[in-house]
Amino acid sequence: MEAKFVNPFLSSLLNVLSTMAQLELKPQAPRLKKDEVARGDVSGVIGMIGPMTKGSFSISFDKSLALEVMHRMLGERPKDINDDVTDMIGEITNMVTGGAKRILADQGYEFNMATPIVVSGPSHTIQHKTDGAKILMPFTSEYGIATIEICFAK
Amino acid sequence: MEAKFVNPFLSSLLNVLSTMAQLELKPQAPRLKKDEVARGDVSGVIGMIGPMTKGSFSISFDKSLALEVMHRMLGERPKDINDDVTDMIGEITNMVTGGAKRILADQGYEFNMATPIVVSGPSHTIQHKTDGAKILMPFTSEYGIATIEICFAK
Repeated sequence: MEAKFVNPFLSSLLNVLSTMAQLELKPQAPRLKKDEVARGDVSGVIGMIGPMTKGSFSISFDKSLALEVMHRMLGERPKDINDDVTDMIGEITNMVTGGAKRILADQGYEFNMATPIVVSGPSHTIQHKTDGAKILMPFTSEYGIATIEICFAK
Repeated sequence: MEAKFVNPFLSSLLNVLSTMAQLELKPQAPRLKKDEVARGDVSGVIGMIGPMTKGSFSISFDKSLALEVMHRMLGERPKDINDDVTDMIGEITNMVTGGAKRILADQGYEFNMATPIVVSGPSHTIQHKTDGAKILMPFTSEYGIATIEICFAK
């Protein structure tokens, strides 16, 4: 997998969070993941299938960052990760993937999206099981870390 | 969503675990899930996309049951959920969904599978975010509980 598949997810995430939550995340260097594992307290995951490939995307948030995004997007400030927060993470997962899908379609790479799944649980880990390349990319903010991971099968 | 979409996943799971691990799970009544949430220590999730619909499937295991399946399938008995266990859960997710896909294709319902994602973390919860019906189905065994959830968007 090449950078051209990663940048659309990166720019889509920055765009979604700055537009919807007025929040600027700072992207860190992407890693071709070997041992490193995405970790978070609430994650959205989604499957992608195209004519040439299939894959998966995930975005994992620290609880503190997820609750701050919730406050900025919807005005609510829940103490914990409740159903409103997981709904929002599902929506963000859809929006980020949908934005990347549009950019990639313009470049001739088509895929369709499955429906998102949201995982909640303190410090869980996410592993994309494929023989293809996986790229993990952390984002920092003053409220905590978000990590995206993108993989496409060979 | 109707029973005809659920039974293929049910029979495929029972078949995979009895064939690969000589383990008989006892299916409990399926629930049209409202408040109930699938919970486990290790889960496999996968996206599905067909010409008429899209959806997602998940299977969540108690740690004790996952380790017992590992022992029976591969002869190893790790103390904890390591990468071998998550690989196995990814494979089971693929096999169960692949089995259901073949049964449903014979009935005229085609879909393609994305790549599986495995989540680890004590007592995490899984929520499928779709406006379509979701069906949750627990399975009991002397080693712990497994729960599958199937959803297809409207």
